[in-house]
Amino acid sequence: MSISPIIDRLIQAFQILPGVGPKTAQRMVLFLLQRNIDGANRLASALDDAILNVQECSACRNLSESDLCNLCSDDRRDDGLLCVVEAVADIIAIEQAGGFNGYYFVLNGRLSPIDGVGPDELGLSQLVKRVNDLQPGEVIIATNPTVEGEATAHYIQQLLENHVNSITRIAHGVPIGGELEYSDGGTIVHALQGRRTFV
Amino acid sequence: MSISPIIDRLIQAFQILPGVGPKTAQRMVLFLLQRNIDGANRLASALDDAILNVQECSACRNLSESDLCNLCSDDRRDDGLLCVVEAVADIIAIEQAGGFNGYYFVLNGRLSPIDGVGPDELGLSQLVKRVNDLQPGEVIIATNPTVEGEATAHYIQQLLENHVNSITRIAHGVPIGGELEYSDGGTIVHALQGRRTFV
Repeated sequence: MSISPIIDRLIQAFQILPGVGPKTAQRMVLFLLQRNIDGANRLASALDDAILNVQECSACRNLSESDLCNLCSDDRRDDGLLCVVEAVADIIAIEQAGGFNGYYFVLNGRLSPIDGVGPDELGLSQLVKRVNDLQPGEVIIATNPTVEGEATAHYIQQLLENHVNSITRIAHGVPIGGELEYSDGGTIVHALQGRRTFV
Repeated sequence: MSISPIIDRLIQAFQILPGVGPKTAQRMVLFLLQRNIDGANRLASALDDAILNVQECSACRNLSESDLCNLCSDDRRDDGLLCVVEAVADIIAIEQAGGFNGYYFVLNGRLSPIDGVGPDELGLSQLVKRVNDLQPGEVIIATNPTVEGEATAHYIQQLLENHVNSITRIAHGVPIGGELEYSDGGTIVHALQGRRTFV
Protein backbone atom coordinates (compact mmCIF):
# COMPACT_ATOMS: atom_id res chain seq x y z
CA MET A 1 0.00 0.00 0.00
CA SER A 2 1.33 3.35 -1.00
CA ILE A 3 0.81 6.51 1.01
CA SER A 4 2.68 8.55 -1.59
CA PRO A 5 5.46 7.82 -4.11
CA ILE A 6 7.89 10.12 -2.28
CA ILE A 7 7.31 8.40 1.06
CA ASP A 8 7.57 4.97 -0.59
CA ARG A 9 10.90 5.94 -2.11
CA LEU A 10 12.16 7.12 1.28
CA ILE A 11 11.02 3.88 2.97
CA GLN A 12 12.84 1.94 0.22
CA ALA A 13 15.97 4.05 0.69
CA PHE A 14 16.08 3.36 4.43
CA GLN A 15 15.96 -0.38 3.78
CA ILE A 16 19.51 -0.43 2.42
CA LEU A 17 20.75 0.17 5.98
CA PRO A 18 22.03 -2.94 7.79
CA GLY A 19 19.36 -4.45 10.02
CA VAL A 20 16.52 -2.32 8.66
CA GLY A 21 13.55 -4.10 7.08
CA PRO A 22 10.29 -2.72 5.65
CA LYS A 23 8.51 -2.26 9.01
CA THR A 24 11.48 -0.56 10.71
CA ALA A 25 12.01 1.67 7.67
CA GLN A 26 8.34 2.69 7.73
CA ARG A 27 8.57 3.47 11.43
CA MET A 28 11.71 5.57 10.87
CA VAL A 29 10.15 7.52 8.01
CA LEU A 30 6.87 8.26 9.82
CA PHE A 31 8.83 9.28 12.93
CA LEU A 32 11.05 11.67 10.96
CA LEU A 33 8.26 13.25 8.92
CA GLN A 34 5.69 13.53 11.70
CA ARG A 35 7.63 14.02 14.90
CA ASN A 36 11.13 15.20 14.12
CA ILE A 37 11.41 17.20 10.94
CA ASP A 38 14.38 19.08 12.43
CA GLY A 39 16.13 15.76 12.96
CA ALA A 40 15.30 14.78 9.39
CA ASN A 41 16.88 18.02 8.17
CA ARG A 42 19.98 17.44 10.27
CA LEU A 43 20.25 13.86 8.98
CA ALA A 44 19.88 14.96 5.36
CA SER A 45 22.49 17.69 5.64
CA ALA A 46 24.95 15.50 7.59
CA LEU A 47 24.54 12.83 4.93
CA ASP A 48 25.14 15.25 2.05
CA ASP A 49 28.15 16.65 3.86
CA ALA A 50 29.66 13.20 4.44
CA ILE A 51 29.01 12.04 0.86
CA LEU A 52 30.75 15.13 -0.50
CA ASN A 53 33.68 15.31 1.88
CA VAL A 54 34.57 11.91 3.26
CA GLN A 55 37.25 10.00 1.40
CA GLU A 56 39.84 7.33 2.09
CA CYS A 57 43.04 8.42 3.85
CA SER A 58 45.81 8.06 1.29
CA ALA A 59 48.21 6.65 3.89
CA CYS A 60 46.13 4.21 5.93
CA ARG A 61 42.75 3.77 4.14
CA ASN A 62 40.84 5.08 7.16
CA LEU A 63 37.87 7.36 6.43
CA SER A 64 38.92 10.99 6.36
CA GLU A 65 37.85 14.50 5.42
CA SER A 66 41.22 15.33 3.92
CA ASP A 67 44.00 13.51 2.07
CA LEU A 68 45.49 12.34 5.38
CA CYS A 69 43.18 11.28 8.22
CA ASN A 70 43.19 12.78 11.72
CA LEU A 71 45.33 9.91 13.00
CA CYS A 72 47.93 9.85 10.22
CA SER A 73 48.36 13.63 10.38
CA ASP A 74 48.86 13.60 14.17
CA ASP A 75 52.64 13.65 14.65
CA ARG A 76 52.42 13.18 18.43
CA ARG A 77 51.64 9.50 17.83
CA ASP A 78 54.30 6.80 18.17
CA ASP A 79 55.79 6.16 14.72
CA GLY A 80 57.43 2.98 16.00
CA LEU A 81 54.11 1.11 15.92
CA LEU A 82 51.80 0.29 13.04
CA CYS A 83 48.59 -1.64 13.73
CA VAL A 84 46.85 -3.45 10.86
CA VAL A 85 43.07 -3.81 11.29
CA GLU A 86 40.26 -5.19 9.16
CA ALA A 87 37.87 -2.24 9.41
CA VAL A 88 37.46 1.39 10.39
CA ALA A 89 35.18 0.20 13.21
CA ASP A 90 38.21 -1.63 14.66
CA ILE A 91 40.17 1.64 14.82
CA ILE A 92 37.27 3.20 16.70
CA ALA A 93 37.18 0.25 19.13
CA ILE A 94 40.94 0.36 19.75
CA GLU A 95 40.98 4.15 20.19
CA GLN A 96 38.05 3.97 22.61
CA ALA A 97 39.84 1.28 24.60
CA GLY A 98 42.93 3.49 24.86
CA GLY A 99 46.43 2.07 25.43
CA PHE A 100 47.58 2.22 21.80
CA ASN A 101 49.23 5.32 20.44
CA GLY A 102 50.74 4.23 17.13
CA TYR A 103 49.49 4.45 13.58
CA TYR A 104 46.98 2.25 11.77
CA PHE A 105 46.43 0.59 8.42
CA VAL A 106 42.91 -0.48 7.43
CA LEU A 107 42.46 -3.49 5.15
CA ASN A 108 38.74 -2.85 4.66
CA GLY A 109 38.16 -6.60 4.57
CA ARG A 110 39.98 -9.89 5.01
CA LEU A 111 41.33 -12.41 2.52
CA SER A 112 38.37 -14.41 1.27
CA PRO A 113 38.87 -15.92 -2.19
CA ILE A 114 35.27 -17.18 -2.25
CA ASP A 115 34.04 -13.57 -2.03
CA GLY A 116 36.63 -12.38 -4.55
CA VAL A 117 38.68 -10.58 -1.89
CA GLY A 118 42.39 -10.95 -2.62
CA PRO A 119 45.56 -8.95 -1.78
CA ASP A 120 44.61 -6.15 -4.20
CA GLU A 121 41.24 -5.51 -2.54
CA LEU A 122 42.98 -5.21 0.84
CA GLY A 123 45.48 -2.66 -0.48
CA LEU A 124 48.43 -4.80 0.56
CA SER A 125 50.85 -3.07 -1.82
CA GLN A 126 49.78 0.17 -0.14
CA LEU A 127 50.52 -1.48 3.22
CA VAL A 128 54.07 -2.36 2.08
CA LYS A 129 54.53 1.22 0.95
CA ARG A 130 53.20 2.53 4.27
CA VAL A 131 55.61 0.27 6.18
CA ASN A 132 58.56 1.40 4.04
CA ASP A 133 57.59 5.08 4.48
CA LEU A 134 56.95 4.90 8.22
CA GLN A 135 59.74 2.41 9.07
CA PRO A 136 58.04 1.27 12.30
CA GLY A 137 59.93 -0.99 14.68
CA GLU A 138 56.88 -3.20 15.06
CA VAL A 139 53.80 -4.09 13.03
CA ILE A 140 50.87 -5.40 15.10
CA ILE A 141 48.45 -7.51 13.09
CA ALA A 142 45.03 -7.04 14.70
CA THR A 143 42.76 -8.87 12.25
CA ASN A 144 39.93 -10.79 13.93
CA PRO A 145 40.64 -14.30 15.25
CA THR A 146 38.37 -15.93 12.64
CA VAL A 147 39.53 -18.38 9.96
CA GLU A 148 39.81 -15.62 7.35
CA GLY A 149 41.33 -13.18 9.84
CA GLU A 150 44.04 -15.70 10.77
CA ALA A 151 44.77 -16.48 7.12
CA THR A 152 45.04 -12.76 6.41
CA ALA A 153 47.39 -12.33 9.38
CA HIS A 154 49.71 -15.10 8.13
CA TYR A 155 49.71 -13.69 4.62
CA ILE A 156 50.62 -10.22 5.86
CA GLN A 157 53.30 -11.64 8.15
CA GLN A 158 55.01 -13.30 5.19
CA LEU A 159 54.57 -10.22 3.03
CA LEU A 160 56.20 -7.90 5.56
CA GLU A 161 58.89 -10.27 6.89
CA ASN A 162 61.73 -8.52 5.06
CA HIS A 163 60.42 -5.01 5.57
CA VAL A 164 60.14 -4.74 9.35
CA ASN A 165 62.01 -6.05 12.40
CA SER A 166 59.15 -7.24 14.53
CA ILE A 167 55.73 -8.50 13.45
CA THR A 168 53.29 -9.36 16.26
CA ARG A 169 49.75 -10.69 16.53
CA ILE A 170 47.20 -9.53 19.15
CA ALA A 171 46.67 -12.02 21.98
CA HIS A 172 43.78 -14.48 21.86
CA GLY A 173 42.43 -15.73 25.18
CA VAL A 174 39.69 -15.51 27.76
CA PRO A 175 38.14 -12.02 27.61
CA ILE A 176 38.40 -9.79 30.71
CA GLY A 177 35.33 -10.40 32.87
CA GLY A 178 34.72 -13.72 31.09
CA GLU A 179 34.70 -17.16 32.68
CA LEU A 180 36.63 -20.28 31.70
CA GLU A 181 33.50 -22.35 32.28
CA TYR A 182 31.64 -20.54 29.53
CA SER A 183 34.55 -20.08 27.10
CA ASP A 184 34.70 -22.20 23.95
CA GLY A 185 37.43 -24.79 23.41
CA GLY A 186 39.38 -22.76 20.84
CA THR A 187 39.59 -19.80 23.18
CA ILE A 188 40.80 -21.96 26.08
CA VAL A 189 43.46 -23.67 23.90
CA HIS A 190 44.72 -20.24 22.79
CA ALA A 191 44.67 -18.91 26.36
CA LEU A 192 46.84 -21.82 27.51
CA GLN A 193 49.21 -21.64 24.54
CA GLY A 194 49.60 -17.89 24.98
CA ARG A 195 50.30 -18.09 28.74
CA ARG A 196 52.79 -15.63 30.23
CA THR A 197 55.02 -15.61 33.30
CA PHE A 198 53.98 -13.20 36.04
CA VAL A 199 55.86 -9.94 35.86
CA MET B 1 36.82 8.66 19.76
CA SER B 2 36.40 10.78 16.71
CA ILE B 3 37.26 9.63 13.21
CA SER B 4 36.29 13.01 11.80
CA PRO B 5 33.83 15.76 12.81
CA ILE B 6 31.69 15.16 9.71
CA ILE B 7 31.37 11.45 10.42
CA ASP B 8 30.66 12.13 14.09
CA ARG B 9 27.89 14.50 13.12
CA LEU B 10 26.38 11.89 10.82
CA ILE B 11 26.54 9.21 13.52
CA GLN B 12 24.82 11.65 15.90
CA ALA B 13 22.16 12.42 13.29
CA PHE B 14 21.32 8.73 12.80
CA GLN B 15 20.78 8.33 16.54
CA ILE B 16 17.55 10.32 16.46
CA LEU B 17 15.92 7.39 14.64
CA PRO B 18 13.75 5.12 16.81
CA GLY B 19 15.67 2.06 17.98
CA VAL B 20 19.07 3.33 16.82
CA GLY B 21 21.82 3.72 19.43
CA PRO B 22 25.48 4.76 19.05
CA LYS B 23 26.77 1.37 17.88
CA THR B 24 24.00 0.83 15.33
CA ALA B 25 24.40 4.39 14.06
CA GLN B 26 28.15 3.86 13.64
CA ARG B 27 27.53 0.62 11.76
CA MET B 28 25.02 2.35 9.45
CA VAL B 29 27.37 5.24 8.73
CA LEU B 30 30.41 3.06 7.99
CA PHE B 31 28.26 0.81 5.81
CA LEU B 32 26.91 3.75 3.81
CA LEU B 33 30.24 5.52 3.35
CA GLN B 34 32.36 2.45 2.64
CA ARG B 35 30.09 -0.03 0.93
CA ASN B 36 27.08 1.73 -0.48
CA ILE B 37 27.71 5.32 -1.44
CA ASP B 38 24.99 5.03 -4.13
CA GLY B 39 22.54 4.01 -1.44
CA ALA B 40 23.68 6.94 0.69
CA ASN B 41 23.01 9.28 -2.24
CA ARG B 42 19.58 7.79 -2.80
CA LEU B 43 18.77 8.11 0.92
CA ALA B 44 19.92 11.73 1.03
CA SER B 45 17.92 12.73 -2.03
CA ALA B 46 14.80 10.82 -0.93
CA LEU B 47 15.04 12.53 2.45
CA ASP B 48 15.41 16.00 0.94
CA ASP B 49 12.52 15.29 -1.39
CA ALA B 50 10.25 14.14 1.45
CA ILE B 51 11.19 17.07 3.72
CA LEU B 52 10.36 19.53 0.96
CA ASN B 53 7.20 17.94 -0.39
CA VAL B 54 5.43 15.93 2.28
CA GLN B 55 2.73 17.73 4.23
CA GLU B 56 -0.44 16.91 6.13
CA CYS B 57 -3.56 16.21 4.07
CA SER B 58 -5.92 19.11 4.74
CA ALA B 59 -8.94 16.79 4.90
CA CYS B 60 -7.74 13.78 6.90
CA ARG B 61 -4.30 14.64 8.41
CA ASN B 62 -2.65 11.75 6.55
CA LEU B 63 0.80 12.42 5.09
CA SER B 64 0.56 13.68 1.53
CA GLU B 65 2.47 15.28 -1.32
CA SER B 66 -0.37 17.61 -2.18
CA ASP B 67 -3.13 19.45 -0.34
CA LEU B 68 -5.34 16.34 -0.47
CA CYS B 69 -3.77 12.90 0.04
CA ASN B 70 -4.01 10.00 -2.41
CA LEU B 71 -6.86 8.47 -0.45
CA CYS B 72 -8.98 11.61 0.04
CA SER B 73 -8.62 12.55 -3.64
CA ASP B 74 -9.69 9.09 -4.82
CA ASP B 75 -13.41 9.44 -5.61
CA ARG B 76 -13.87 5.72 -6.24
CA ARG B 77 -13.80 5.12 -2.49
CA ASP B 78 -16.98 4.65 -0.47
CA ASP B 79 -18.01 8.04 0.92
CA GLY B 80 -20.47 6.35 3.26
CA LEU B 81 -17.66 5.22 5.57
CA LEU B 82 -15.14 7.22 7.58
CA CYS B 83 -12.56 5.39 9.68
CA VAL B 84 -10.82 7.25 12.53
CA VAL B 85 -7.31 5.96 13.33
CA GLU B 86 -4.55 7.02 15.70
CA ALA B 87 -1.67 7.07 13.23
CA VAL B 88 -0.66 7.03 9.58
CA ALA B 89 0.85 3.59 10.22
CA ASP B 90 -2.68 2.36 11.04
CA ILE B 91 -3.91 3.48 7.60
CA ILE B 92 -1.06 1.52 6.01
CA ALA B 93 -1.97 -1.56 8.08
CA ILE B 94 -5.68 -1.33 7.21
CA GLU B 95 -4.98 -0.73 3.50
CA GLN B 96 -2.57 -3.67 3.39
CA ALA B 97 -5.17 -5.88 5.06
CA GLY B 98 -7.72 -4.88 2.42
CA GLY B 99 -11.47 -5.07 3.00
CA PHE B 100 -12.01 -1.38 3.78
CA ASN B 101 -12.75 1.07 1.02
CA GLY B 102 -13.94 4.20 2.80
CA TYR B 103 -12.13 7.36 3.86
CA TYR B 104 -9.90 7.94 6.88
CA PHE B 105 -9.20 10.52 9.52
CA VAL B 106 -5.87 10.45 11.37
CA LEU B 107 -5.72 11.70 14.96
CA ASN B 108 -1.91 11.55 15.09
CA GLY B 109 -2.12 10.52 18.72
CA ARG B 110 -4.62 9.60 21.42
CA LEU B 111 -6.10 11.55 24.34
CA SER B 112 -3.46 11.58 27.05
CA PRO B 113 -3.73 14.55 29.44
CA ILE B 114 -0.52 13.51 31.20
CA ASP B 115 1.41 14.01 27.92
CA GLY B 116 -0.46 17.23 27.16
CA VAL B 117 -2.46 15.65 24.34
CA GLY B 118 -6.02 17.01 24.34
CA PRO B 119 -8.78 17.41 21.72
CA ASP B 120 -6.91 20.23 19.95
CA GLU B 121 -3.78 18.14 19.36
CA LEU B 122 -5.91 15.40 17.80
CA GLY B 123 -7.57 17.83 15.41
CA LEU B 124 -11.05 16.91 16.65
CA SER B 125 -12.64 20.13 15.36
CA GLN B 126 -11.18 19.19 11.97
CA LEU B 127 -12.77 15.74 12.39
CA VAL B 128 -16.19 17.30 13.02
CA LYS B 129 -15.73 19.44 9.90
CA ARG B 130 -14.68 16.39 7.89
CA VAL B 131 -17.78 14.48 9.05
CA ASN B 132 -20.04 17.41 8.17
CA ASP B 133 -18.43 17.77 4.73
CA LEU B 134 -18.43 14.07 3.86
CA GLN B 135 -21.74 13.18 5.53
CA PRO B 136 -20.85 9.50 5.89
CA GLY B 137 -23.51 7.06 6.99
CA GLU B 138 -21.09 5.47 9.46
CA VAL B 139 -18.00 6.50 11.38
CA ILE B 140 -15.78 3.58 12.45
CA ILE B 141 -13.56 4.41 15.41
CA ALA B 142 -10.40 2.31 15.03
CA THR B 143 -8.24 3.65 17.85
CA ASN B 144 -6.16 0.96 19.58
CA PRO B 145 -7.79 -1.07 22.37
CA THR B 146 -5.56 0.49 25.06
CA VAL B 147 -6.77 2.61 27.97
CA GLU B 148 -6.05 5.86 26.12
CA GLY B 149 -7.38 4.47 22.84
CA GLU B 150 -10.67 3.50 24.50
CA ALA B 151 -10.99 6.88 26.22
CA THR B 152 -10.35 8.58 22.89
CA ALA B 153 -12.99 6.40 21.23
CA HIS B 154 -15.60 7.32 23.85
CA TYR B 155 -14.76 11.01 23.59
CA ILE B 156 -15.12 10.95 19.81
CA GLN B 157 -18.35 8.98 20.03
CA GLN B 158 -19.89 11.67 22.21
CA LEU B 159 -18.48 14.44 20.02
CA LEU B 160 -19.97 13.02 16.82
CA GLU B 161 -23.26 11.71 18.24
CA ASN B 162 -25.34 14.48 16.72
CA HIS B 163 -23.40 14.66 13.45
CA VAL B 164 -23.66 11.12 12.10
CA ASN B 165 -26.22 8.31 12.13
CA SER B 166 -24.06 5.37 13.05
CA ILE B 167 -20.84 5.34 15.09
CA THR B 168 -19.13 1.96 15.44
CA ARG B 169 -16.03 0.60 17.16
CA ILE B 170 -13.74 -2.07 15.69
CA ALA B 171 -14.19 -5.52 17.25
CA HIS B 172 -11.91 -6.65 20.07
CA GLY B 173 -11.40 -10.38 20.45
CA VAL B 174 -9.15 -13.35 19.91
CA PRO B 175 -6.85 -12.62 16.91
CA ILE B 176 -7.11 -14.89 13.84
CA GLY B 177 -4.64 -17.73 14.28
CA GLY B 178 -4.49 -17.05 18.03
CA GLU B 179 -5.48 -19.45 20.79
CA LEU B 180 -7.89 -18.94 23.69
CA GLU B 181 -5.42 -20.70 25.98
CA TYR B 182 -2.80 -18.02 25.44
CA SER B 183 -5.10 -14.99 25.24
CA ASP B 184 -5.21 -12.57 28.15
CA GLY B 185 -8.32 -12.16 30.30
CA GLY B 186 -9.34 -8.81 28.85
CA THR B 187 -9.27 -10.18 25.32
CA ILE B 188 -11.38 -13.21 26.29
CA VAL B 189 -13.96 -11.05 28.10
CA HIS B 190 -14.24 -8.82 25.01
CA ALA B 191 -14.45 -11.85 22.72
CA LEU B 192 -17.37 -13.23 24.75
CA GLN B 193 -19.15 -9.87 25.06
CA GLY B 194 -18.77 -9.24 21.35
CA ARG B 195 -20.09 -12.66 20.31
CA ARG B 196 -22.18 -12.87 17.14
CA THR B 197 -24.82 -15.27 15.81
CA PHE B 198 -23.73 -17.43 12.88
CA VAL B 199 -24.82 -15.99 9.59
